[in-house]
Amino acid sequence: MLLNEERLRAALSKHGLDAVIAAAPENVLYTSGFWCLPQWIRRGPQALVVLTGDQREPVVITGTSTLDLLADQAVAARVRRYGSFTVDRHPATTLDSVSSRQADLQSLPDDGSAIDALIVELRAAGHAGSHIGIDEVGLMPGDIERLRRELPDVTWVPATSILRSVRAVKTPEEIERLRIVAGITERSVRAALAVAREGATEADLARAFHTQTVQEDGFPVLGCIGFGERSALMNVQPSDRPLRRGDIIRFDVGGHYRNYRADIARIASFGEPSREIFGKYDALNKGVQRGIEHIRPGARASEIFHLVVETVRREGIPHYQRNHVGHGIGLDGYDLPLLSAGSSDVLEAGMVLCIETPYYELGRVGLQVEDMLVVTPDGAEMLTSNGDNLVVLP
Amino acid sequence: MLLNEERLRAALSKHGLDAVIAAAPENVLYTSGFWCLPQWIRRGPQALVVLTGDQREPVVITGTSTLDLLADQAVAARVRRYGSFTVDRHPATTLDSVSSRQADLQSLPDDGSAIDALIVELRAAGHAGSHIGIDEVGLMPGDIERLRRELPDVTWVPATSILRSVRAVKTPEEIERLRIVAGITERSVRAALAVAREGATEADLARAFHTQTVQEDGFPVLGCIGFGERSALMNVQPSDRPLRRGDIIRFDVGGHYRNYRADIARIASFGEPSREIFGKYDALNKGVQRGIEHIRPGARASEIFHLVVETVRREGIPHYQRNHVGHGIGLDGYDLPLLSAGSSDVLEAGMVLCIETPYYELGRVGLQVEDMLVVTPDGAEMLTSNGDNLVVLP
Repeated sequence: MLLNEERLRAALSKHGLDAVIAAAPENVLYTSGFWCLPQWIRRGPQALVVLTGDQREPVVITGTSTLDLLADQAVAARVRRYGSFTVDRHPATTLDSVSSRQADLQSLPDDGSAIDALIVELRAAGHAGSHIGIDEVGLMPGDIERLRRELPDVTWVPATSILRSVRAVKTPEEIERLRIVAGITERSVRAALAVAREGATEADLARAFHTQTVQEDGFPVLGCIGFGERSALMNVQPSDRPLRRGDIIRFDVGGHYRNYRADIARIASFGEPSREIFGKYDALNKGVQRGIEHIRPGARASEIFHLVVETVRREGIPHYQRNHVGHGIGLDGYDLPLLSAGSSDVLEAGMVLCIETPYYELGRVGLQVEDMLVVTPDGAEMLTSNGDNLVVLP
Repeated sequence: MLLNEERLRAALSKHGLDAVIAAAPENVLYTSGFWCLPQWIRRGPQALVVLTGDQREPVVITGTSTLDLLADQAVAARVRRYGSFTVDRHPATTLDSVSSRQADLQSLPDDGSAIDALIVELRAAGHAGSHIGIDEVGLMPGDIERLRRELPDVTWVPATSILRSVRAVKTPEEIERLRIVAGITERSVRAALAVAREGATEADLARAFHTQTVQEDGFPVLGCIGFGERSALMNVQPSDRPLRRGDIIRFDVGGHYRNYRADIARIASFGEPSREIFGKYDALNKGVQRGIEHIRPGARASEIFHLVVETVRREGIPHYQRNHVGHGIGLDGYDLPLLSAGSSDVLEAGMVLCIETPYYELGRVGLQVEDMLVVTPDGAEMLTSNGDNLVVLP
């Protein structure tokens, strides 16, 4: 199960909510296990999940054309469907279990639209007078106004940030997926470096990187790979720039595995790096290592931030400046917590973090250390191979 | 250039708009050529484009941490930036042209937030009293209320559907990208079929499919590949179901190339298909062929729909039912027009369409023909190899 039920229950109680409605794709998946294809590839086609505080099974609202996915994913939920979609039936066919569930779902009444279905559901459940959290970022324009109009007795509370906070502490299934995608991403960096030679382009390395990700059933998302002066472009998109001796190669990369994201950075040098570059890399790496040493439940995100930045400054980049030195990761590339000076987040066991020290010198070089870890009851367990990862290519 | 300037100008004039603001990622890219990484991978971090009717260069509003992308993509636009992000500068570095533009952009004032920057821009441009189209689907909750409050003299007109309508007629650059991605997708199907043998899984074929897409610098998006009874699942996600003799394999697939999408379907049979299956496939294929014959500027989408459905019915599936038999494709997988009974769309030269006849028999088999074409001044030019594409694997 992806959902941290205990944390959700605590959040509903803390915010005085009788129910919460998930609408953004990651929250629909998180709360119900339902991966609804169309809402991941375009805005608009909506699946919703209604979760009540007393923890009966979720109610999933989805388009009729996606009922096959609900059936195939064996989603444990009560379902409402909307819209028409024709699936035929050959009289001689004996249905397998997936098709049989699809047939059952297809025979449900058509509720008209996602919001219509939500209104019917909430009325039927007797939610008048209740406080309901709504994942406002996942709605379409006009949806919230319609809900207010049709259910005037409900107090609507924005819940996107509440759900984000619930997602911050991962369940074992989530940690397992994150561990897998971290490994896929490291091996994809190695596959990219295996094609690095004089004249190979950033695009050549990106192709090798994404191919390895796909070969391991990951899905490409982030592929910033830059050579030399382009390694300083923070979001560098692979180009035809050829690799030249003396170049630094910066990776800031990560795909997803079953929707769980990776985000790591690696540096390689094509030829021995200068003492100055090595020193700067070392300072960035020591910053990350020092941060990792202090990660434990109860540590403040802002403390970790200051420790990391001060270490980098002391160890070799006195002018080092950052807005943050890391962030949570999960279904979103930027989950909570945020390791920043202004953050009030406090670390908890089960959080999965990226800890990072990027450094960009415009038009010259970009260096970056970024690793993934899970906060354990007494510290941190690395999900990536951590340490001095500067690779020197001969 | 991606933007169809003439069509945009006509749309502004038709709707009495002085300016239009793009906010969704596809519309930001479409109107300015600016691909802003963070807005493609998560909701929230916003880039906006302001286009005025008199066709001066666009104004791009974006986060400081994405200015490298603007510079590297050589986006021709006036820029406003918001937020802080530190990039260092080594005194001995001579800046290349990309870094030099990034430095210039970085020296612009910080406007605070995307919406703050938009307000400043519209005030500076003297837009009080004007009618402004706003791409409402790309905004975050509360944004439109803030704009109404801060610029009370502006009449705000929802413009997501206006921009979608502008995008329906493709420019040569767009058609070229669509032609490339259509070819990548066909070759990816062939690569998948090359690994199809007794015991190979749906996931094996998907891996081969996406690998080919990545090898050709495409990006995986849609990969519905189902065997046997699973070919009837309309959104089938590849599983460990092994291929068995007698199975139909249904592909409904397509990646993107430089953000332009493909969506095609192909059917293969592992062993000679039954006469009944062959007949049904033939009916579906004849439906598509008949639709293609009638595609030309001025044809009504609803007429094409009826022709296709009637042909399928007459040729072998008398009970055939569909909500639509095709749709536009471009930056979105469902661009305009929609080939449906209720559509009022009329075809125009330069539209790129998917024309399709999916057919699902629950728990038994799914069959589908889907090809991509561009509407030409006197008919249709296929972007995929069209005709009888049923592959019989020995």
